[in-house]
Amino acid sequence: MNLPRDLSVSSPSNPRLKALVALRRRRVREETGQTIVEGHEEIRLALDAGVTPRTLYVAEELFSPSGRAGSQEIGTQPELVERLRAAGVEIVRLSPAAYAKVSYREGPDGLLAVVDDVGVPLASLTVDGPSWLGLVAQRIEKPGNLGAMLRTADAAGVDAVVAADPVTDWGNPNVVRASKGTLFAVPVASGTTSETLAWLAHGAVTLVVTTPETDLLHTEVDYTGRVAIAVGSEKHGVDDALLVAATHRVRIPMHGRANSLNVSVAAAVVLYEAVRQRASRLGGGGPA
Amino acid sequence: MNLPRDLSVSSPSNPRLKALVALRRRRVREETGQTIVEGHEEIRLALDAGVTPRTLYVAEELFSPSGRAGSQEIGTQPELVERLRAAGVEIVRLSPAAYAKVSYREGPDGLLAVVDDVGVPLASLTVDGPSWLGLVAQRIEKPGNLGAMLRTADAAGVDAVVAADPVTDWGNPNVVRASKGTLFAVPVASGTTSETLAWLAHGAVTLVVTTPETDLLHTEVDYTGRVAIAVGSEKHGVDDALLVAATHRVRIPMHGRANSLNVSVAAAVVLYEAVRQRASRLGGGGPA
Repeated sequence: MNLPRDLSVSSPSNPRLKALVALRRRRVREETGQTIVEGHEEIRLALDAGVTPRTLYVAEELFSPSGRAGSQEIGTQPELVERLRAAGVEIVRLSPAAYAKVSYREGPDGLLAVVDDVGVPLASLTVDGPSWLGLVAQRIEKPGNLGAMLRTADAAGVDAVVAADPVTDWGNPNVVRASKGTLFAVPVASGTTSETLAWLAHGAVTLVVTTPETDLLHTEVDYTGRVAIAVGSEKHGVDDALLVAATHRVRIPMHGRANSLNVSVAAAVVLYEAVRQRASRLGGGGPA
Repeated sequence: MNLPRDLSVSSPSNPRLKALVALRRRRVREETGQTIVEGHEEIRLALDAGVTPRTLYVAEELFSPSGRAGSQEIGTQPELVERLRAAGVEIVRLSPAAYAKVSYREGPDGLLAVVDDVGVPLASLTVDGPSWLGLVAQRIEKPGNLGAMLRTADAAGVDAVVAADPVTDWGNPNVVRASKGTLFAVPVASGTTSETLAWLAHGAVTLVVTTPETDLLHTEVDYTGRVAIAVGSEKHGVDDALLVAATHRVRIPMHGRANSLNVSVAAAVVLYEAVRQRASRLGGGGPA
């Protein structure tokens, strides 16, 4: 029986590697509709979400001795390679030097995949159910903040995250990395702020906007219905359009000398207030 | 009248600059008892907290045109320089090339100070009052996470943050940077885990430890008394010693495919549950 041999690349100047590095540029991601995801756990989360890589780049010399890189019970690295090979995914073996050229994170574990870019047009996302929960992130600049919000959104059971007037695209490899792969687990979309507001209005969504310019605390509104929570850019917060469209404007109490929480932390505090209220409504709860 | 002239450095190879760059190393910080803080807002927060720099390095060419770098109403950059000069602080003018050598952040605003390292022995921090609130951060590795926790601790009105078995020292410039200067606004200390536990026990503090290995939700315990909230390392969470010593072990509900929140986000969610309960106890509150 003749098994097809994996492609093997040992020269760091190989053109395929240049194309891979080029995916760090937003224009190239938008032209190709592709992005990269690195790491055993992250690729596993993409697979679990139904995303099949186009190509898997493998540097076996970087595998952990047990093959079990990652904190969860997700099988070994060789098992992941075999699973993808069986699914017909192109496998490319890289020398450590070649892998070092394309890796973009600390402590690489020898697995990097090219996947179709995520993120769908806003119009293709549907708001449904009486307790749909969304997060709107307006003009967020730092990929690390978008990625952190995705991790929190995944944990909080958010139904969709919308980037309004995005400065950073969802496919940015640093968003993928900071999201720990949850980018593939939570539906994400992008649109202008006015498109986002029209879409929310069409879905009859209660819009809760965070801003320091209000007396209403984030714990004083009801999140148990069909709700979206909006946070704004690191420097300027939400814009006037979001403030005007808000059903409720809320602030997180600040007791300190400085006057701001990190935007992804602010999103987490409000999202988990929603989670708390929803659990209470279902009969859980605790001290009021 | 003869004003003393500021020292002026234009060569990037000046020995003073080398000494400044050396402060990025932990060993040098520990030997000198000094660290660096960069940025108009950050230095202002240090001043407001009573920390007077030993030296202020200034690159006027990098000042913003208005002199108002920073998001708050904190006066202009030249005003800050004059205030420190009047207080007897040594001022060193740097050329842009010299400043570039010592700056350690994106978008530098031309102000960088050397300050005495913060962080005190655990024994010198006192637990007092019926509603003292502490945060214990065990074996946190990433400076960005420690810094983010300080911002949140400042905002939530935390009385002290203790690094137990610290991997990263409080003076790490990336902690200072990620904390946005709140490192100087919140009392911080370090100690071994057993020292920390003895200190908490001596203060009769209720210890609430976060872990996935429990059924009790973080919203189901009472945080209105004298309470410390503990979070553990990015990879391994809290250790057995903390789990055994805990008054309550709590988990944050996770509804997603992935199974972890960022540790600074987890700390924020629990701290703000404490803030919510304390506000409710005082007669505020909202929907249960």
